[in-house]
Amino acid sequence: MGSGNVAERLTDAFTGNGIKVDYLLSKSSRGQQLAANYGLRRVNNPEDIEGEGIVLLCVRDDAVNEAFARRFSESVLLCHTAGSVPLSALGERRRKGVFYPLQTLSKNRRLSFEQVPLCLEAAAKEDLELLAALAGSISRDVRFLNSQQRLHTHLAAVFVSNFVNRLYGIAGEILATEGVDFDILKPLIEEVAAKIKDVEPAEAQTGPALRGDGKVIDKHLQLLENQPEYKEIYQIITNSIIKHKKEK
Amino acid sequence: MGSGNVAERLTDAFTGNGIKVDYLLSKSSRGQQLAANYGLRRVNNPEDIEGEGIVLLCVRDDAVNEAFARRFSESVLLCHTAGSVPLSALGERRRKGVFYPLQTLSKNRRLSFEQVPLCLEAAAKEDLELLAALAGSISRDVRFLNSQQRLHTHLAAVFVSNFVNRLYGIAGEILATEGVDFDILKPLIEEVAAKIKDVEPAEAQTGPALRGDGKVIDKHLQLLENQPEYKEIYQIITNSIIKHKKEK
Repeated sequence: MGSGNVAERLTDAFTGNGIKVDYLLSKSSRGQQLAANYGLRRVNNPEDIEGEGIVLLCVRDDAVNEAFARRFSESVLLCHTAGSVPLSALGERRRKGVFYPLQTLSKNRRLSFEQVPLCLEAAAKEDLELLAALAGSISRDVRFLNSQQRLHTHLAAVFVSNFVNRLYGIAGEILATEGVDFDILKPLIEEVAAKIKDVEPAEAQTGPALRGDGKVIDKHLQLLENQPEYKEIYQIITNSIIKHKKEK
Repeated sequence: MGSGNVAERLTDAFTGNGIKVDYLLSKSSRGQQLAANYGLRRVNNPEDIEGEGIVLLCVRDDAVNEAFARRFSESVLLCHTAGSVPLSALGERRRKGVFYPLQTLSKNRRLSFEQVPLCLEAAAKEDLELLAALAGSISRDVRFLNSQQRLHTHLAAVFVSNFVNRLYGIAGEILATEGVDFDILKPLIEEVAAKIKDVEPAEAQTGPALRGDGKVIDKHLQLLENQPEYKEIYQIITNSIIKHKKEK
């Protein structure tokens, strides 16, 4: 349902694991393509979906609302896939749930769903079990989160993915001013992400801010003199590191 | 020279690749331990180091200075290993250089040096060749950076390692308030770092800020209402994503 990155990656994961996807609800050309690629029956309206199956709404967070939900048959288990949207956004219906994959899903980038945490919620116990079985067919990491937990998890995910990626971008711009290739940072980026698997963040922290090395910090700030935006980011995160320093 | 993480990892890399490390200059107990572990001759003073070999100063950035450098024999190639310190910090001597490993090096975490970019600089051409040979014995990624390029690279590295790690820490705290385990984020952290190997940062950017999803952003800001520090970080990086949005 929907034809964006989430729909595409989920369709790929389900069909790859022998789970039949019946319908695709989408009017877009990308939806047509997706339906053609995976042999799905494409429909234009929620009212066209029949049976008692699970319907996954892979749409923008702000497209999940009661009016839209009301158009689906009461007999389907209607689920949204949005981290920031509460279960209640699907209205008063009995059969409703959430199927939230916690991963960054890109258009042209396949990834194994086996490691993707699937965060589930449902109004009815039987429906939660149904979702767990479905989730378990494509991932080994199935979790039960209520709406409040999911919202916080979504926020935390923004910090470690969107915000981290922006820091990568800033670093790339800093290097470009001196003609240094971004790939010089790749082993470091990889190691920082790998380290966190074994060591908790406070323990893994290193660098001038943690060491209280004011001289290096001053040099860095001077380099950013003409980029007030990056200077401000530098200062605020540096202060945060100093403030939350764990005594070793 | 020195007995911190850099000294330990480098000693480990050199001896593991058949390069003899003769001396260790350190008075600390950790230095004693390191010398004992790798069969190094430990000395107390720079004046005790003889021959025409390469001396690597693995000390705090602010410990690299002319007065200290003057205590080493003119016949050794004296190198520091600090990203933020210019070559000139070693004073007027003829034989001087820089051997800067661009990686986060931890005490109890071994890592293969093969992938670590080694950034070299030297005052004399022959010495640069000498350093390149030494660097090439432990890494496949040997680079020549001048002091200005190295300083910018060091700053960029702070963004992608120290600052990224702090964002991991903030995310962990956000999850903890709802009793969600930090490990739920690990597959995402891994994928974000992996993606950047293939896709440039601006291209890899996703999330509510990029989509201009003000509703989700408002929800997030509300969650951070009582944590002004994190709210400020959220706002400033969100604004940065919006400002540098690449039209797709």
